Amino acid sequence: MKKTGSLEALAEALRRLPGVGPKSAQRMAYHLLQHDREAASTLGHALLNAMDRIHHCSSCNTFTEIEICETCQDAQRDGTLLCVVETPSDQMMIEQTLTYKGLYFVLMGRLSPLDGIGPRDIYLERLIARATDGIVQEVVLATNFTNEGEATAHYIGEMLKARGLKVSRLARGVPVGGELEYVDAGTIARAMLDRRSA
Amino acid sequence: MKKTGSLEALAEALRRLPGVGPKSAQRMAYHLLQHDREAASTLGHALLNAMDRIHHCSSCNTFTEIEICETCQDAQRDGTLLCVVETPSDQMMIEQTLTYKGLYFVLMGRLSPLDGIGPRDIYLERLIARATDGIVQEVVLATNFTNEGEATAHYIGEMLKARGLKVSRLARGVPVGGELEYVDAGTIARAMLDRRSA
Ligand SMILES: [Zn+2]
Ligand SMILES: [Zn+2]
Repeated sequence: MKKTGSLEALAEALRRLPGVGPKSAQRMAYHLLQHDREAASTLGHALLNAMDRIHHCSSCNTFTEIEICETCQDAQRDGTLLCVVETPSDQMMIEQTLTYKGLYFVLMGRLSPLDGIGPRDIYLERLIARATDGIVQEVVLATNFTNEGEATAHYIGEMLKARGLKVSRLARGVPVGGELEYVDAGTIARAMLDRRSA
Repeated sequence: MKKTGSLEALAEALRRLPGVGPKSAQRMAYHLLQHDREAASTLGHALLNAMDRIHHCSSCNTFTEIEICETCQDAQRDGTLLCVVETPSDQMMIEQTLTYKGLYFVLMGRLSPLDGIGPRDIYLERLIARATDGIVQEVVLATNFTNEGEATAHYIGEMLKARGLKVSRLARGVPVGGELEYVDAGTIARAMLDRRSA
Protein backbone atom coordinates (compact mmCIF):
# COMPACT_ATOMS: atom_id res chain seq x y z
CA MET A 1 0.00 0.00 0.00
CA LYS A 2 1.23 3.48 -0.79
CA LYS A 3 0.09 5.94 1.81
CA THR A 4 -1.82 8.90 0.47
CA GLY A 5 -0.22 12.32 0.75
CA SER A 6 -2.68 13.82 3.23
CA LEU A 7 -2.53 10.78 5.49
CA GLU A 8 1.26 10.74 5.52
CA ALA A 9 1.32 14.47 6.24
CA LEU A 10 -1.12 14.03 9.11
CA ALA A 11 0.90 11.22 10.73
CA GLU A 12 4.10 13.25 10.40
CA ALA A 13 2.47 16.32 11.93
CA LEU A 14 1.06 14.32 14.86
CA ARG A 15 4.53 12.94 15.47
CA ARG A 16 5.77 16.40 16.31
CA LEU A 17 3.57 16.49 19.41
CA PRO A 18 5.67 15.92 22.55
CA GLY A 19 5.65 12.27 23.65
CA VAL A 20 4.17 10.93 20.40
CA GLY A 21 6.27 8.40 18.45
CA PRO A 22 5.76 7.18 14.87
CA LYS A 23 3.54 4.23 15.82
CA SER A 24 1.21 6.22 18.03
CA ALA A 25 1.09 9.06 15.48
CA GLN A 26 -0.14 6.57 12.90
CA ARG A 27 -2.65 5.09 15.30
CA MET A 28 -3.93 8.56 16.14
CA ALA A 29 -4.33 9.38 12.44
CA TYR A 30 -6.26 6.17 11.74
CA HIS A 31 -8.38 6.62 14.84
CA LEU A 32 -9.35 10.17 13.90
CA LEU A 33 -10.15 9.23 10.29
CA GLN A 34 -12.14 6.16 11.23
CA HIS A 35 -13.81 7.09 14.50
CA ASP A 36 -13.60 10.77 15.30
CA ARG A 37 -13.48 13.10 12.34
CA GLU A 38 -15.30 15.74 14.34
CA ALA A 39 -12.55 15.75 16.99
CA ALA A 40 -9.97 16.07 14.23
CA SER A 41 -11.67 19.11 12.72
CA THR A 42 -12.15 20.66 16.13
CA LEU A 43 -8.47 20.16 16.93
CA GLY A 44 -7.43 21.55 13.55
CA HIS A 45 -9.37 24.75 14.10
CA ALA A 46 -8.30 24.99 17.76
CA LEU A 47 -4.63 24.79 16.79
CA LEU A 48 -4.83 27.47 14.12
CA ASN A 49 -6.97 29.65 16.35
CA ALA A 50 -4.66 29.36 19.35
CA MET A 51 -1.49 30.06 17.36
CA ASP A 52 -3.18 33.07 15.84
CA ARG A 53 -4.53 34.59 19.03
CA ILE A 54 -2.36 33.61 21.98
CA HIS A 55 0.76 35.52 22.98
CA HIS A 56 2.54 36.46 26.21
CA CYS A 57 1.03 38.84 28.78
CA SER A 58 3.18 41.95 28.67
CA SER A 59 3.22 42.06 32.45
CA CYS A 60 3.44 38.49 33.83
CA ASN A 61 4.50 36.65 30.66
CA THR A 62 1.76 34.00 30.82
CA PHE A 63 -0.26 32.99 27.75
CA THR A 64 -3.18 35.30 27.04
CA GLU A 65 -5.32 36.59 24.22
CA ILE A 66 -5.29 40.14 25.55
CA GLU A 67 -2.40 42.59 26.06
CA ILE A 68 -2.41 42.31 29.85
CA CYS A 69 -4.02 39.20 31.35
CA GLU A 70 -6.98 39.22 33.72
CA THR A 71 -4.88 38.28 36.74
CA CYS A 72 -2.51 41.20 36.18
CA GLN A 73 -5.48 43.53 35.71
CA ASP A 74 -7.13 42.43 38.96
CA ALA A 75 -7.08 45.49 41.25
CA GLN A 76 -7.83 43.31 44.32
CA ARG A 77 -4.41 41.73 44.16
CA ASP A 78 -1.45 42.84 46.23
CA GLY A 79 1.00 44.48 43.83
CA THR A 80 3.82 44.40 46.39
CA LEU A 81 4.11 40.61 46.11
CA LEU A 82 5.41 38.89 42.96
CA CYS A 83 5.47 35.10 42.75
CA VAL A 84 7.80 33.53 40.16
CA VAL A 85 6.68 30.20 38.70
CA GLU A 86 7.96 27.98 35.90
CA THR A 87 4.67 27.38 34.07
CA PRO A 88 1.03 28.48 33.91
CA SER A 89 0.11 25.08 35.44
CA ASP A 90 2.23 25.88 38.48
CA GLN A 91 0.49 29.24 38.81
CA MET A 92 -2.87 27.49 38.70
CA MET A 93 -1.78 25.08 41.44
CA ILE A 94 -0.83 28.00 43.69
CA GLU A 95 -4.08 29.81 42.94
CA GLN A 96 -5.99 26.74 44.09
CA THR A 97 -4.43 26.93 47.54
CA LEU A 98 -6.06 30.35 48.15
CA THR A 99 -3.00 31.33 50.22
CA TYR A 100 -1.57 33.93 47.87
CA LYS A 101 -3.10 37.20 46.74
CA GLY A 102 -0.14 38.82 44.99
CA LEU A 103 0.83 38.86 41.33
CA TYR A 104 2.87 36.42 39.23
CA PHE A 105 5.69 36.13 36.75
CA VAL A 106 5.74 33.01 34.58
CA LEU A 107 9.20 31.97 33.35
CA MET A 108 7.83 29.47 30.81
CA GLY A 109 10.66 27.13 31.73
CA ARG A 110 13.69 26.85 34.02
CA LEU A 111 17.40 27.26 33.62
CA SER A 112 18.87 24.10 32.13
CA PRO A 113 22.40 24.60 30.76
CA LEU A 114 22.59 20.99 29.55
CA ASP A 115 19.56 21.57 27.34
CA GLY A 116 20.87 24.95 26.24
CA ILE A 117 18.21 26.85 28.20
CA GLY A 118 19.80 30.02 29.54
CA PRO A 119 18.61 33.23 31.22
CA ARG A 120 17.28 34.68 27.97
CA ASP A 121 15.03 31.66 27.36
CA ILE A 122 13.25 32.20 30.67
CA TYR A 123 12.76 35.94 30.14
CA LEU A 124 14.96 37.10 33.02
CA GLU A 125 15.35 40.63 31.65
CA ARG A 126 11.60 40.97 31.63
CA LEU A 127 11.43 39.60 35.16
CA ILE A 128 14.00 42.14 36.40
CA ALA A 129 12.12 45.00 34.78
CA ARG A 130 8.88 43.72 36.28
CA ALA A 131 10.28 43.16 39.78
CA THR A 132 11.98 46.57 39.90
CA ASP A 133 8.87 48.57 39.04
CA GLY A 134 9.05 50.30 42.44
CA ILE A 135 5.84 48.66 43.68
CA VAL A 136 7.01 45.07 44.15
CA GLN A 137 8.63 44.61 47.58
CA GLU A 138 8.91 40.84 47.91
CA VAL A 139 9.52 38.21 45.25
CA VAL A 140 8.37 34.69 46.18
CA LEU A 141 10.35 32.06 44.27
CA ALA A 142 8.02 29.15 43.51
CA THR A 143 10.03 27.25 40.93
CA ASN A 144 9.99 23.47 41.28
CA PHE A 145 12.05 21.73 43.94
CA THR A 146 13.97 19.77 41.34
CA ASN A 147 17.70 20.39 40.78
CA GLU A 148 16.98 22.70 37.87
CA GLY A 149 14.18 24.51 39.68
CA GLU A 150 16.41 25.05 42.75
CA ALA A 151 19.26 26.32 40.58
CA THR A 152 16.86 28.67 38.80
CA ALA A 153 15.55 29.96 42.14
CA HIS A 154 19.09 30.50 43.40
CA TYR A 155 20.14 32.35 40.25
CA ILE A 156 17.07 34.59 40.25
CA GLY A 157 17.28 35.14 44.00
CA GLU A 158 20.87 36.40 43.86
CA MET A 159 20.01 38.63 40.92
CA LEU A 160 17.04 40.23 42.66
CA LYS A 161 18.69 40.57 46.07
CA ALA A 162 21.51 42.45 44.33
CA ARG A 163 18.84 44.92 43.27
CA GLY A 164 17.63 45.42 46.83
CA LEU A 165 14.50 43.27 46.72
CA LYS A 166 13.32 40.97 49.48
CA VAL A 167 13.33 37.43 48.14
CA SER A 168 11.63 34.38 49.64
CA ARG A 169 11.29 30.74 48.66
CA LEU A 170 8.36 28.37 49.23
CA ALA A 171 9.09 26.31 52.37
CA ARG A 172 10.23 22.78 51.84
CA GLY A 173 6.85 21.38 52.63
CA VAL A 174 7.03 20.47 48.98
CA PRO A 175 8.74 17.06 48.77
CA VAL A 176 12.34 17.30 47.60
CA GLY A 177 12.55 16.40 43.92
CA GLY A 178 8.82 17.05 43.55
CA GLU A 179 7.09 19.00 40.81
CA LEU A 180 4.39 21.45 41.91
CA GLU A 181 1.94 20.19 39.35
CA TYR A 182 1.78 16.81 41.07
CA VAL A 183 1.68 17.97 44.69
CA ASP A 184 -1.57 18.24 46.62
CA ALA A 185 -2.91 21.71 47.35
CA GLY A 186 -2.61 21.27 51.13
CA THR A 187 1.14 20.75 50.94
CA ILE A 188 1.55 23.73 48.65
CA ALA A 189 -0.60 25.82 51.00
CA ARG A 190 1.67 25.01 53.96
CA ALA A 191 4.76 25.69 51.91
CA MET A 192 3.35 29.06 50.93
CA LEU A 193 2.61 30.02 54.53
CA ASP A 194 6.06 28.82 55.67
CA ARG A 195 7.95 30.51 52.88
CA ARG A 196 11.44 31.45 53.95
CA SER A 197 13.81 34.26 53.14
CA ALA A 198 16.10 33.18 50.31
CA MET B 1 -5.18 32.72 36.60
CA LYS B 2 -8.13 32.35 34.29
CA LYS B 3 -7.27 30.37 31.19
CA THR B 4 -7.98 32.15 27.95
CA GLY B 5 -10.67 30.73 25.66
CA SER B 6 -8.41 29.64 22.81
CA LEU B 7 -5.96 27.94 25.15
CA GLU B 8 -8.69 26.05 26.97
CA ALA B 9 -10.23 25.01 23.64
CA LEU B 10 -6.85 23.76 22.41
CA ALA B 11 -6.19 21.67 25.53
CA GLU B 12 -9.69 20.19 25.34
CA ALA B 13 -9.26 19.33 21.67
CA LEU B 14 -5.86 17.70 22.25
CA ARG B 15 -7.44 15.63 25.00
CA ARG B 16 -9.65 13.94 22.45
CA LEU B 17 -6.61 12.31 20.83
CA PRO B 18 -6.40 8.62 21.81
CA GLY B 19 -4.07 8.06 24.77
CA VAL B 20 -3.88 11.74 25.77
CA GLY B 21 -5.10 12.66 29.28
CA PRO B 22 -5.83 16.14 30.66
CA LYS B 23 -2.30 16.70 32.01
CA SER B 24 -0.53 15.71 28.83
CA ALA B 25 -3.02 17.69 26.72
CA GLN B 26 -2.14 20.78 28.70
CA ARG B 27 1.58 20.09 28.42
CA MET B 28 1.22 19.64 24.67
CA ALA B 29 -0.66 22.94 24.36
CA TYR B 30 1.99 24.83 26.36
CA HIS B 31 4.80 23.14 24.46
CA LEU B 32 3.33 24.06 21.08
CA LEU B 33 2.68 27.66 22.10
CA GLN B 34 6.08 28.14 23.67
CA HIS B 35 8.41 26.04 21.55
CA ASP B 36 6.83 24.86 18.32
CA ARG B 37 4.22 27.13 16.82
CA GLU B 38 5.20 26.00 13.37
CA ALA B 39 4.43 22.36 14.22
CA ALA B 40 1.09 23.45 15.61
CA SER B 41 0.12 25.28 12.44
CA THR B 42 1.32 22.40 10.30
CA LEU B 43 -0.75 19.96 12.34
CA GLY B 44 -3.79 22.23 12.18
CA HIS B 45 -3.68 22.36 8.42
CA ALA B 46 -2.85 18.64 8.12
CA LEU B 47 -5.90 17.71 10.18
CA LEU B 48 -8.34 19.84 8.21
CA ASN B 49 -6.79 18.74 4.95
CA ALA B 50 -6.90 15.03 5.79
CA MET B 51 -10.50 15.13 7.00
CA ASP B 52 -11.48 16.95 3.87
CA ARG B 53 -9.72 14.68 1.38
CA ILE B 54 -9.43 11.17 2.78
CA HIS B 55 -12.18 8.58 2.44
CA HIS B 56 -12.43 4.81 1.96
CA CYS B 57 -11.28 3.09 -1.23
CA SER B 58 -14.44 1.82 -2.89
CA SER B 59 -12.74 -1.49 -3.58
CA CYS B 60 -10.50 -2.42 -0.62
CA ASN B 61 -11.86 -0.01 2.01
CA THR B 62 -8.48 1.46 2.98
CA PHE B 63 -7.94 5.20 3.38
CA THR B 64 -7.28 7.01 0.11
CA GLU B 65 -7.66 10.37 -1.55
CA ILE B 66 -8.81 8.83 -4.83
CA GLU B 67 -11.89 6.75 -5.66
CA ILE B 68 -9.97 3.48 -6.05
CA CYS B 69 -6.56 3.29 -4.37
CA GLU B 70 -3.27 2.67 -6.16
CA THR B 71 -2.93 -0.89 -4.87
CA CYS B 72 -6.37 -1.85 -6.17
CA GLN B 73 -5.56 -0.23 -9.52
CA ASP B 74 -2.28 -2.14 -9.89
CA ALA B 75 -2.75 -4.44 -12.90
CA GLN B 76 0.32 -6.50 -11.87
CA ARG B 77 -1.50 -7.88 -8.86
CA ASP B 78 -3.26 -11.23 -8.74
CA GLY B 79 -6.99 -10.51 -8.61
CA THR B 80 -7.83 -14.10 -7.64
CA LEU B 81 -6.30 -13.60 -4.18
CA LEU B 82 -7.87 -11.34 -1.54
CA CYS B 83 -6.14 -10.80 1.80
CA VAL B 84 -8.29 -9.54 4.69
CA VAL B 85 -6.51 -7.39 7.29
CA GLU B 86 -7.66 -5.36 10.26
CA THR B 87 -5.83 -2.11 9.53
CA PRO B 88 -3.77 -0.29 6.88
CA SER B 89 -0.72 -0.83 9.14
CA ASP B 90 -1.23 -4.60 8.95
CA GLN B 91 -1.46 -4.38 5.17
CA MET B 92 1.83 -2.47 5.10
CA MET B 93 3.49 -5.14 7.24
CA ILE B 94 2.40 -7.84 4.79
CA GLU B 95 3.55 -5.80 1.81
CA GLN B 96 6.98 -5.55 3.39
CA THR B 97 7.35 -9.34 3.37
CA LEU B 98 7.16 -9.40 -0.45
CA THR B 99 5.39 -12.80 -0.21
CA TYR B 100 1.98 -11.72 -1.40
CA LYS B 101 0.97 -10.32 -4.76
CA GLY B 102 -2.81 -10.39 -4.46
CA LEU B 103 -5.26 -7.68 -3.43
CA TYR B 104 -6.54 -6.62 -0.01
CA PHE B 105 -9.62 -5.80 2.00
CA VAL B 106 -9.14 -3.63 5.08
CA LEU B 107 -11.74 -4.15 7.83
CA MET B 108 -10.68 -1.02 9.77
CA GLY B 109 -11.18 -2.97 12.97
CA ARG B 110 -12.18 -6.39 14.29
CA LEU B 111 -15.32 -7.89 15.74
CA SER B 112 -15.54 -7.00 19.42
CA PRO B 113 -19.01 -7.56 20.87
CA LEU B 114 -17.95 -6.26 24.29
CA ASP B 115 -17.04 -2.92 22.71
CA GLY B 116 -20.19 -2.94 20.60
CA ILE B 117 -18.25 -3.54 17.38
CA GLY B 118 -20.34 -5.79 15.17
CA PRO B 119 -20.27 -6.99 11.55
CA ARG B 120 -21.53 -3.68 10.21
CA ASP B 121 -18.68 -1.76 11.84
CA ILE B 122 -16.08 -3.81 9.99
CA TYR B 123 -17.81 -3.51 6.60
CA LEU B 124 -18.64 -7.19 6.17
CA GLU B 125 -21.32 -6.55 3.54
CA ARG B 126 -18.75 -4.73 1.46
CA LEU B 127 -16.29 -7.59 1.98
CA ILE B 128 -18.85 -10.17 0.80
CA ALA B 129 -19.64 -8.12 -2.29
CA ARG B 130 -15.93 -7.71 -2.96
CA ALA B 131 -15.05 -11.40 -2.40
CA THR B 132 -17.91 -12.67 -4.57
CA ASP B 133 -17.03 -10.61 -7.63
CA GLY B 134 -16.42 -13.82 -9.60
CA ILE B 135 -12.67 -13.15 -9.91
CA VAL B 136 -11.54 -13.78 -6.33
CA GLN B 137 -10.90 -17.47 -5.72
CA GLU B 138 -9.09 -17.52 -2.39
CA VAL B 139 -9.49 -15.27 0.61
CA VAL B 140 -6.47 -15.14 2.95
CA LEU B 141 -7.53 -14.20 6.47
CA ALA B 142 -4.75 -12.11 8.01
CA THR B 143 -6.49 -10.66 11.03
CA ASN B 144 -4.42 -10.55 14.21
CA PHE B 145 -3.84 -13.71 16.25
CA THR B 146 -5.50 -12.19 19.28
CA ASN B 147 -8.78 -13.58 20.62
CA GLU B 148 -10.78 -10.93 18.78
CA GLY B 149 -8.77 -11.33 15.57
CA GLU B 150 -9.22 -15.12 15.64
CA ALA B 151 -12.96 -14.76 16.28
CA THR B 152 -13.19 -12.29 13.41
CA ALA B 153 -11.30 -14.66 11.10
CA HIS B 154 -13.57 -17.53 12.11
CA TYR B 155 -16.74 -15.50 11.54
CA ILE B 156 -15.59 -14.22 8.14
CA GLY B 157 -14.24 -17.65 7.13
CA GLU B 158 -17.57 -19.40 7.77
CA MET B 159 -19.42 -16.66 5.93
CA LEU B 160 -17.23 -16.87 2.85
CA LYS B 161 -17.00 -20.67 2.76
CA ALA B 162 -20.80 -20.75 2.77
CA ARG B 163 -20.56 -18.75 -0.46
CA GLY B 164 -18.26 -21.30 -2.04
CA LEU B 165 -14.95 -19.46 -1.65
CA LYS B 166 -11.67 -21.06 -0.69
CA VAL B 167 -10.56 -19.52 2.60
CA SER B 168 -7.10 -19.70 4.17
CA ARG B 169 -5.52 -18.33 7.32
CA LEU B 170 -1.95 -17.16 7.87
CA ALA B 171 -0.01 -20.04 9.44
CA ARG B 172 0.64 -19.82 13.13
CA GLY B 173 4.18 -18.74 12.64
CA VAL B 174 2.82 -15.55 14.10
CA PRO B 175 3.11 -15.84 17.89
CA VAL B 176 -0.21 -16.61 19.56
CA GLY B 177 -1.63 -13.42 21.05
CA GLY B 178 0.64 -11.36 18.81
CA GLU B 179 -0.31 -8.32 16.78
CA LEU B 180 0.98 -8.19 13.20
CA GLU B 181 2.18 -4.66 13.56
CA TYR B 182 4.78 -5.74 16.14
CA VAL B 183 5.96 -8.97 14.47
CA ASP B 184 9.11 -9.10 12.35
CA ALA B 185 8.71 -9.39 8.60
CA GLY B 186 10.47 -12.80 8.47
CA THR B 187 7.90 -14.41 10.74
CA ILE B 188 5.05 -12.92 8.74
CA ALA B 189 6.70 -14.11 5.52
CA ARG B 190 6.83 -17.71 6.78
CA ALA B 191 3.28 -17.52 8.02
CA MET B 192 2.17 -16.30 4.62
CA LEU B 193 3.94 -19.15 2.80
CA ASP B 194 2.57 -21.71 5.28
CA ARG B 195 -0.96 -20.40 5.20
CA ARG B 196 -3.49 -23.13 5.86
CA SER B 197 -7.01 -23.84 4.70
CA ALA B 198 -9.47 -22.41 7.21
ZN1 LIG C 1 -0.42 38.79 33.20
ZN1 LIG D 1 -8.14 -0.04 -2.63
